[in-house]
Amino acid sequence: MKTWNSVAIVGVGLIGGSVGLALLRRGLAKEVVGIGRNAQSLAAAKRAGAVTRTTLEIADGVKAADLVIVCTPVAQIVEQAAIAAAACPPGALLTDAGSTKAEIVGQLDAARRRGSWRPGVRFVGSHPLTGNEKKGPQHARAELFEKRAVIITPTDDTTAADRETLKEFWMSLGARVVEMSAAQHDRVVAATSHVPHLVASAIAASTPEEYVTLTAGGWLDTTRIAAGDPALWQQILLGNRENVLASLARFTGVLAALRTAVEQQDAAKLETLLAEAKRIRDALGS
Amino acid sequence: MKTWNSVAIVGVGLIGGSVGLALLRRGLAKEVVGIGRNAQSLAAAKRAGAVTRTTLEIADGVKAADLVIVCTPVAQIVEQAAIAAAACPPGALLTDAGSTKAEIVGQLDAARRRGSWRPGVRFVGSHPLTGNEKKGPQHARAELFEKRAVIITPTDDTTAADRETLKEFWMSLGARVVEMSAAQHDRVVAATSHVPHLVASAIAASTPEEYVTLTAGGWLDTTRIAAGDPALWQQILLGNRENVLASLARFTGVLAALRTAVEQQDAAKLETLLAEAKRIRDALGS
Repeated sequence: MKTWNSVAIVGVGLIGGSVGLALLRRGLAKEVVGIGRNAQSLAAAKRAGAVTRTTLEIADGVKAADLVIVCTPVAQIVEQAAIAAAACPPGALLTDAGSTKAEIVGQLDAARRRGSWRPGVRFVGSHPLTGNEKKGPQHARAELFEKRAVIITPTDDTTAADRETLKEFWMSLGARVVEMSAAQHDRVVAATSHVPHLVASAIAASTPEEYVTLTAGGWLDTTRIAAGDPALWQQILLGNRENVLASLARFTGVLAALRTAVEQQDAAKLETLLAEAKRIRDALGS
Repeated sequence: MKTWNSVAIVGVGLIGGSVGLALLRRGLAKEVVGIGRNAQSLAAAKRAGAVTRTTLEIADGVKAADLVIVCTPVAQIVEQAAIAAAACPPGALLTDAGSTKAEIVGQLDAARRRGSWRPGVRFVGSHPLTGNEKKGPQHARAELFEKRAVIITPTDDTTAADRETLKEFWMSLGARVVEMSAAQHDRVVAATSHVPHLVASAIAASTPEEYVTLTAGGWLDTTRIAAGDPALWQQILLGNRENVLASLARFTGVLAALRTAVEQQDAAKLETLLAEAKRIRDALGS
């Protein structure tokens, strides 16, 4: 297994903290530098054993890095990756953990072409399909990536060696890795993550408050992700706006068919539609 | 704690089986008779320790019952309760575990007034807010009702003694009991259970199948109840049609507001709507 001399993590919350914990627990990095804007959060990450050193300055944190991972909220990834790319050692590999990919990959590719990066520095996008409604380094877990999928989004410019390195990196944390284009990634997560988030929020917000104590497991399950951070999710949803709207249209079309079957008291049709949903859901475990 | 000489359970699946297990484990009933149409299912319930005796005939099963609980799918409850009410000992109390209440309570009240019931037999509706996407006596658990809410729906004709008896019955299985009218019950569960079920089904059915292996916890949570039995849910949704349509309209209104905020790239509005959803969701635990 490849080991790293110095891994810099920009943004040491749930995801960044878990990357650091996993690297250190598994002996995969000599140094893990936590970089952030909040000294308290950095101190918490250090106490949790997620990083070996902390700093408020990106340039200071990445100066010896052979790998930089930007784990900030999506709206800050491009800016922070660009600062890291201008300050890290020549030849360092950069990646991120953002929930949207096309805009980030495109903007960073343009920045690299403008020539402000250190020589030989490359960015390849990543998205670990994990995390939950909690945030902050206090919820970080070394096992967070085990058996989870991580999507990586190489471009035509990405070398085979970098794809392999990034793939091995996530696999070394226990994940399985799937490669696809950034555009395809964004279509997938619109359907599997972003629209479910909007829908879960709509269920929660449309439930009369006096009924909430009378909910059972079904409501709790369907609304769980609505507890996610509104500021983060606003960025994610707007960062993937066109795919979210397209995927939402597909959802509302299916819901309208279910609604019509209820309205017209068409028991056979309703049962067929519910059975089709069950068939797709049953393909996975609980 | 009141104990029963003979409790008859019509329909020994997940709910009926769990009632039987809980009664016997807690020593609350001398005899628990499992009544069903499927000899294999009855044999499984007996093996699981959920019943002490089984029969395919309602009239035979209820002949000594001081309490009858009808736990069949909702579309069969009225018919089976009426048969039980005509065959049980004078003075027996009947209840059910159906997910809809107004139609069942109304029809059984009319049946009672027509005079075909044994003398002094009463029906008071119940709905334990539990169960999950699994079914069958093999999934029954004695703890199923612990700390769960059970809604009971007395009418103007229900005596204070019967309300108290039924309340104590569910409390003796570990549940907390909430009383409301059958009409109010049906409004509540439309919002907290029936619409979430439709929505979960629509998410599952609108997810392209090739994306399903790329889902994470959010999709799994929001779609879990879509694995429920389509035949059962078709009955439940059509049995509460008007409330489901009204509640669905409230949901689609909130979803449309979220959609508009995404479409118009209104970050502030989107964040406010997501925060309102989070506030309601955070009122409960995970």
